[in-house]
Amino acid sequence: MKYYSYEDFKNDTRELIIKVKKLEVDAIVGISRGGLTLAHAMAEGLGIRDVQTIRTELYDKNCKRDTLSIFGKCSFAGIKKVLVVDDIADSGETIKAVMDFLVLQNSDVEFVSATLFYKKTSVYEPVFWINEANDWIDFFWERDFVI
Amino acid sequence: MKYYSYEDFKNDTRELIIKVKKLEVDAIVGISRGGLTLAHAMAEGLGIRDVQTIRTELYDKNCKRDTLSIFGKCSFAGIKKVLVVDDIADSGETIKAVMDFLVLQNSDVEFVSATLFYKKTSVYEPVFWINEANDWIDFFWERDFVI
Repeated sequence: MKYYSYEDFKNDTRELIIKVKKLEVDAIVGISRGGLTLAHAMAEGLGIRDVQTIRTELYDKNCKRDTLSIFGKCSFAGIKKVLVVDDIADSGETIKAVMDFLVLQNSDVEFVSATLFYKKTSVYEPVFWINEANDWIDFFWERDFVI
Repeated sequence: MKYYSYEDFKNDTRELIIKVKKLEVDAIVGISRGGLTLAHAMAEGLGIRDVQTIRTELYDKNCKRDTLSIFGKCSFAGIKKVLVVDDIADSGETIKAVMDFLVLQNSDVEFVSATLFYKKTSVYEPVFWINEANDWIDFFWERDFVI
């Protein structure tokens, strides 16, 4: 298990900001909870005021296959390009479901994905990612606030 | 001007988590952008999965008094108690407007406010706050991601 510190996050997020800056996105959607600190930092670095969130939950439907539900009403009036961020594409199910959902609901908006980590076995590869994940990552936000 | 580091934030947020833990809130609303990293950290510390955001903008209406517009559709179905967080109650106009808006729109939900900083001249005092602000605060999220 690798502890991912604020310093690691700062360096990687700055690198991600440089990568996506040229896209000139109008808004950022952070996938809750893992993508929230990243969404905030990216918004500050890119000078984006419009930050929205979306949240998913896995439901076990009576011994059938798990289904993923999506919560959060985003509104993209007058918006052309949106950056969707999460901490990691691990199985990739979450970010894939969120991207599919956003594209389906907002056919006139362009969505671009970005994560700090990407696992090669993920079903979805974000457009931008910084590190390949080989180990379990212990993000500072998951560790530092447990009382 | 005081640089507010991640270490300062970690210590203060842990203190805030201890203060609000007994409330047993069901959801957290982070005021964008300043309250987003705090909303994430509080959610991790309190074990809350439901994190939503709200955003305000000041409009100058043709030489008349500035008006504050509120963006972000929150949904509180089945929710009884919500924690609303922001980094600072400075003038207090933003958090006051957001609290008034949320209470007006959701009369069956209890809203409790919390910030890291509170200025004595603010028009609104959050229910929970950690530090009195006397100086201009340079939050790490406003400084560390500027390329």
